[in-house]
Amino acid sequence: MVLFSTKFVELMFRVVLFCFFLTVILNVAIVSADQPIEVGVSLKVHQITQINQKSENFSVVATLIMKFNEPTLADESGEKKLARPYLAPNFAKLLEERGLTWPVHSFYNLQGRVDYQTRIVTLDAQGNIIYVARFTATFQAPDFDFRHFPLDSQNFYIKLDSLPNVNRIKYIVIQDSSGIGENLGEEEWKLKHTKTEVTTHKEFGENAYRFVLGFSGNRHLDYYILRILIPVIIIILVSWFTFFLKDYSKRIDLTSSNLLLFIAFNFTISNDLPRLGYITLMDTFLLATFATTGLVVLANVWLRRLQNVGKEMVASNLDRIFTWGYPMFYFGGGFLMLILFYF
Amino acid sequence: MVLFSTKFVELMFRVVLFCFFLTVILNVAIVSADQPIEVGVSLKVHQITQINQKSENFSVVATLIMKFNEPTLADESGEKKLARPYLAPNFAKLLEERGLTWPVHSFYNLQGRVDYQTRIVTLDAQGNIIYVARFTATFQAPDFDFRHFPLDSQNFYIKLDSLPNVNRIKYIVIQDSSGIGENLGEEEWKLKHTKTEVTTHKEFGENAYRFVLGFSGNRHLDYYILRILIPVIIIILVSWFTFFLKDYSKRIDLTSSNLLLFIAFNFTISNDLPRLGYITLMDTFLLATFATTGLVVLANVWLRRLQNVGKEMVASNLDRIFTWGYPMFYFGGGFLMLILFYF
Amino acid sequence: MVLFSTKFVELMFRVVLFCFFLTVILNVAIVSADQPIEVGVSLKVHQITQINQKSENFSVVATLIMKFNEPTLADESGEKKLARPYLAPNFAKLLEERGLTWPVHSFYNLQGRVDYQTRIVTLDAQGNIIYVARFTATFQAPDFDFRHFPLDSQNFYIKLDSLPNVNRIKYIVIQDSSGIGENLGEEEWKLKHTKTEVTTHKEFGENAYRFVLGFSGNRHLDYYILRILIPVIIIILVSWFTFFLKDYSKRIDLTSSNLLLFIAFNFTISNDLPRLGYITLMDTFLLATFATTGLVVLANVWLRRLQNVGKEMVASNLDRIFTWGYPMFYFGGGFLMLILFYF
Amino acid sequence: MVLFSTKFVELMFRVVLFCFFLTVILNVAIVSADQPIEVGVSLKVHQITQINQKSENFSVVATLIMKFNEPTLADESGEKKLARPYLAPNFAKLLEERGLTWPVHSFYNLQGRVDYQTRIVTLDAQGNIIYVARFTATFQAPDFDFRHFPLDSQNFYIKLDSLPNVNRIKYIVIQDSSGIGENLGEEEWKLKHTKTEVTTHKEFGENAYRFVLGFSGNRHLDYYILRILIPVIIIILVSWFTFFLKDYSKRIDLTSSNLLLFIAFNFTISNDLPRLGYITLMDTFLLATFATTGLVVLANVWLRRLQNVGKEMVASNLDRIFTWGYPMFYFGGGFLMLILFYF
Amino acid sequence: MVLFSTKFVELMFRVVLFCFFLTVILNVAIVSADQPIEVGVSLKVHQITQINQKSENFSVVATLIMKFNEPTLADESGEKKLARPYLAPNFAKLLEERGLTWPVHSFYNLQGRVDYQTRIVTLDAQGNIIYVARFTATFQAPDFDFRHFPLDSQNFYIKLDSLPNVNRIKYIVIQDSSGIGENLGEEEWKLKHTKTEVTTHKEFGENAYRFVLGFSGNRHLDYYILRILIPVIIIILVSWFTFFLKDYSKRIDLTSSNLLLFIAFNFTISNDLPRLGYITLMDTFLLATFATTGLVVLANVWLRRLQNVGKEMVASNLDRIFTWGYPMFYFGGGFLMLILFYF
Repeated sequence: MVLFSTKFVELMFRVVLFCFFLTVILNVAIVSADQPIEVGVSLKVHQITQINQKSENFSVVATLIMKFNEPTLADESGEKKLARPYLAPNFAKLLEERGLTWPVHSFYNLQGRVDYQTRIVTLDAQGNIIYVARFTATFQAPDFDFRHFPLDSQNFYIKLDSLPNVNRIKYIVIQDSSGIGENLGEEEWKLKHTKTEVTTHKEFGENAYRFVLGFSGNRHLDYYILRILIPVIIIILVSWFTFFLKDYSKRIDLTSSNLLLFIAFNFTISNDLPRLGYITLMDTFLLATFATTGLVVLANVWLRRLQNVGKEMVASNLDRIFTWGYPMFYFGGGFLMLILFYF
Repeated sequence: MVLFSTKFVELMFRVVLFCFFLTVILNVAIVSADQPIEVGVSLKVHQITQINQKSENFSVVATLIMKFNEPTLADESGEKKLARPYLAPNFAKLLEERGLTWPVHSFYNLQGRVDYQTRIVTLDAQGNIIYVARFTATFQAPDFDFRHFPLDSQNFYIKLDSLPNVNRIKYIVIQDSSGIGENLGEEEWKLKHTKTEVTTHKEFGENAYRFVLGFSGNRHLDYYILRILIPVIIIILVSWFTFFLKDYSKRIDLTSSNLLLFIAFNFTISNDLPRLGYITLMDTFLLATFATTGLVVLANVWLRRLQNVGKEMVASNLDRIFTWGYPMFYFGGGFLMLILFYF
Repeated sequence: MVLFSTKFVELMFRVVLFCFFLTVILNVAIVSADQPIEVGVSLKVHQITQINQKSENFSVVATLIMKFNEPTLADESGEKKLARPYLAPNFAKLLEERGLTWPVHSFYNLQGRVDYQTRIVTLDAQGNIIYVARFTATFQAPDFDFRHFPLDSQNFYIKLDSLPNVNRIKYIVIQDSSGIGENLGEEEWKLKHTKTEVTTHKEFGENAYRFVLGFSGNRHLDYYILRILIPVIIIILVSWFTFFLKDYSKRIDLTSSNLLLFIAFNFTISNDLPRLGYITLMDTFLLATFATTGLVVLANVWLRRLQNVGKEMVASNLDRIFTWGYPMFYFGGGFLMLILFYF
Repeated sequence: MVLFSTKFVELMFRVVLFCFFLTVILNVAIVSADQPIEVGVSLKVHQITQINQKSENFSVVATLIMKFNEPTLADESGEKKLARPYLAPNFAKLLEERGLTWPVHSFYNLQGRVDYQTRIVTLDAQGNIIYVARFTATFQAPDFDFRHFPLDSQNFYIKLDSLPNVNRIKYIVIQDSSGIGENLGEEEWKLKHTKTEVTTHKEFGENAYRFVLGFSGNRHLDYYILRILIPVIIIILVSWFTFFLKDYSKRIDLTSSNLLLFIAFNFTISNDLPRLGYITLMDTFLLATFATTGLVVLANVWLRRLQNVGKEMVASNLDRIFTWGYPMFYFGGGFLMLILFYF
Repeated sequence: MVLFSTKFVELMFRVVLFCFFLTVILNVAIVSADQPIEVGVSLKVHQITQINQKSENFSVVATLIMKFNEPTLADESGEKKLARPYLAPNFAKLLEERGLTWPVHSFYNLQGRVDYQTRIVTLDAQGNIIYVARFTATFQAPDFDFRHFPLDSQNFYIKLDSLPNVNRIKYIVIQDSSGIGENLGEEEWKLKHTKTEVTTHKEFGENAYRFVLGFSGNRHLDYYILRILIPVIIIILVSWFTFFLKDYSKRIDLTSSNLLLFIAFNFTISNDLPRLGYITLMDTFLLATFATTGLVVLANVWLRRLQNVGKEMVASNLDRIFTWGYPMFYFGGGFLMLILFYF
């Protein structure tokens, strides 16, 4: 008796060879399908959980659907049957074991983690595969331009890139189920769906398909009017009222404390925005009130000085000019600012 | 000796065919069960960990139970046995391998991740499947309407959608174990369970069942009375007391600093709410105190002016009117506001 | 040659039947064990990482141990061997495959996720199973009652519910390894272990066992004395000192600014607590200082008024009363508050 | 033909028995290895991402290495080969299936989750197993004692406990790769490695090994000098300057507003620390400035009083004493405080 | 009939031996490949989601690509086929089962968790393996030096270490796909790619390869100019204006309140930075304004004193010097500071 009977060795070899053979057959089937797999893609944004302008990103709850056909997974019995569900990672494993490919994808402008709620693949008897993923994720919005803040209008997009080379996977937009929902839950911004399109990208050297969903928004101004504009106008008005008192010393006190108030406003506003390399409309507005308030202090010190050195009359005349020049100055400045930024 | 003995090849083919055969049999069994699977659904909210009105969402600890029967998993021996537990992902895999379907579901208004504490499937000898999931999750509450804030009443809901088409899965409410618990741990809101019902949705093109749990709430007002109303009333009263001093200059100082205080209140309140596109009852209240305080400054400047130009008597008479008009004005304004918002 | 040789089919049937047979035998073994599985439970709280009174929850690092015996997993060779470790999910899978049950459990008052550090099952040759889980988790503390805040005493508990019906799983407390540790790392609260007991719950319709670990705590008052009481007393004292200056106008200024200070304190305190539907001892204290300060302003305005209209003498006499009445008033109020809340 | 041919049954029994046999052999191999497995342990802290004194914990990026030998996994061919990597959970599963044990461990003072970056096991032909885990984690530091804050010195440690009983696993320190790194990235603390040792613990009833890495730290004082000490000294100096003005009324105003400033400091400091049950050096310092400022107000009120009742001379003399007593008082108090805390 | 027929035992032995034999063959194949595996590495930073200078770290969205060849995974049929995707953990498992190694790696300066979006391995018929990981992660930046803050320039790097010894894995930079992207979304910093190189490290005793990607940045100064410099200059200017009023008492009030303002600035700045063991340029700037403002108070007290004791003329002369010395002092100080820090 030999340790390895020839029959046994023969058997083992056959098993191994047969497995190779099977693999080859399966692979040939795949290789022959060398034309691209057409993948229908739809992305629907249901909720916008936040738009964080300081971090320049936004978070959404969305559903991504991908549809394609894999003939080798079709049921040959030809019967019309209902689709069956698979958890997505289990389905990927199934495809790996069968030597099949799938539309590997990656969000180009994603930040952090994708929190999947549901990630299901359904497969029917014709080999139609539908991948449904409902997720919460945060996307970069690097096109934020705050120059006109808070009158600015911004563009947002979500970009989905295919990873393998373009010969295999081809994206097609499913238009009717893409877009942004009715009930986004975003209070500050008025948002509008702008585009759903397929383009290409070259992130990995070769051309590959990219799916883009875009939307744009501009702000409700109520917050800025109620919390910034009205308080500032009331303060300016109240400090104007004091002009009628002819008490230069009191005016100096009041305008100095207004200055501190504007510094507080300045910091409040700055917490709202990233640390930009340019100045915004709001900054211009606040700097203008700074400068004006500083000039008012200067003017009042001058008037007081004139009064102290006995030129009461000159001070009084100048003061009349200031009293009416002050509101004019503000109105003119505000008007100029609007002109400069809109034209 | 040939590489593949005919016997071996024959064996392999038989194995493959037998597997196909088995699969077909199993599938036939499923397909014949073409009427919908009735799924009993119950959702019980045990805790409300937070209601975040700024982000317009709320977080709950809840238990979702789904009950259905899968005859193919029944034990044919017919004996009455106790149910056995499975971890949910393992059970899903088991179903996948058996070519069976299950009630794939998705929370419509979920935000972020579902943190499952327990996610167990029990299966008994009759094929009764009970899915029990205890989880913590955050749901969108997009119906927040702050127009009457803080006297507002809000509606909250949790929507559970079935994913596959409606022919297969049919939801039935298990009424007695659905609802909201006794010990929610929410201090600001008084909450009341409003409905548990099954409706349909068209999120994925076709009609599918939707389970809805709704509840509504209105606020305890103690916080707003203690932190906003009483301080504001005390400040208004104290600034009214100063009317009796006949010192117009001091009044200007005091009311100016009250103005700053109201601006501080304004910001405190605004941190509590999202940046809305409309004004709330609280805003109206604060704007009214703003405007009144501004007018009081104006009036005092005028009185002081009159005094300065020698019309002391006129000022004194006007002042008597102001002294009593001031509280009247507030009471009248408060009364008007209540009228406007309630009728 | 037929496609399926009778021998082959026969073999397949035998395999299938044998498997069924084996399963039946195994199940019978389980079913016969119909008396409850006794599960020894111990819970030890090592650290309290935070007590969040605003969210009404607390976070702990704890070890849960569950001990039970599964005879079918005993090694029949009868040898005394050391226990072997399994990762808990792998062990659950092992039990599923063997058709065995295990003590499925769920924390009743958990919030969010359980972060397991270690989750090991050891199995020895006698079939003794020990489940050891060391975790960090957050639990609801809905019994918070702030009426006596900051002199309040609170109760905390962790409730562990068994999920399957009570016939199968029976909890027994392992007293010596349950409780709270020596080095909890909690600085504000003095905590005391109050009970470890097994009760029942009806969360899923049927009676099932519940394990409860309870502890209670009251606060170190140093923080409240140092940050609230001493500053408030110093401010009250300093504003009392000014009574000796006989300058009613200055007193009005000072007490007005104290009013603002108390409003600031009011907000600081309110950030510490949830938005309650009742008032706390601290609120009463602050409201009393509010009201008193408001009355002091009123009194001084009155005195000033008397002075202005020439009744200097009356003002001076009244003032003497106020000067000594002011501290009396505070002491009396403080004494009354203590009486009211303690008896 | 019978359902179960005797040959088939016989075959099945043989398979089952053979499996038992194999298991027994394997187990015997393990049992005979009853002497403890020596596990070399090293822990290296690369980064300290934060020291959170309010929560009394610290977060580190560290590498844990465990080395031991498992003869049954050695390659019998005796050839010198390179080690092969395994993902740690896969390796644990491999050991479970082979009925082998491994050094199950748990960090005693961990809080929350361990975020593993890399968790690799390498196995070489001699059965040498090296477990390498690089992770980020947060550890409790319950020994924080703030009595001398901010001049305090604190001890930190990481404790790693072995879970199974001590007969099986024995820890040995690998000294040269344990310790704390050069580039910890911690700016506030000066840290020093104090010990790496193996002790025992009794957390699970029986004695088991514990690995301890300890380090200690004291603070850079620049922050406290720049943000607290210098501002307080400047304020004290400036309020001292006003003593030279002989205007008691102005002094009362200034020292009152200083009081408010110290209250603000008090809150700023308190946000830095947990709510302790004792007072710190910093508290003593701030309380002393409180008390002193309160006394200064009192003194000035008294002086003003003397002035008002015509005892100008007495006031002036007393004032001279106060003018020089004030700085003396501070220096003396500061000196006393240092003495009390250091000796 | 014996329990174990000799034929059966023989069969079992053969199976076991054959398996050993196969393993040996496979291993020999690996061992003979003793020369290092050349791994092409590229790292591309797409986004910088934040640079946190207080925690001294930065967060990026990046893509890591690793390319190597494993001949034993090549398809022997020699046909040119497309690559197939694998989920990375599944591929690792595949390699483990085949006894193969892979380029185990670890980020040296990572903090916390790596959030992988996509983690795919593709394998083609030539055995070319491409690992593509797109992730979000936080890296330590321990080289932060704030001495010149906010005019500082900082270096950032990402270090990727190979874990097994250097004989096996050799890193080669893929230059064209490494670097930092165009659209980083970082507003405060101007960033510049500085290097991509392969060095070695000795973290685990033996030499191993390390891949380093470095970039450097300096700040946009707009924020610091708008929020700090301009307000401070306006305050300094306004307090200078008051010098022209010759009212020493008012000046003392104003400069005292400026002092408080600078303390507020001091705290605002300190929240931006870690608690350093050295002083920054910004600190120097603020300390200088502190000291100057303190000296101005002192000077004004002195002037007032002179005035009080009747030396009006001396005070007036000194004041003229101060009036022009004050701005000179600031300009000179600012100039000096620039000189000191730049040369």
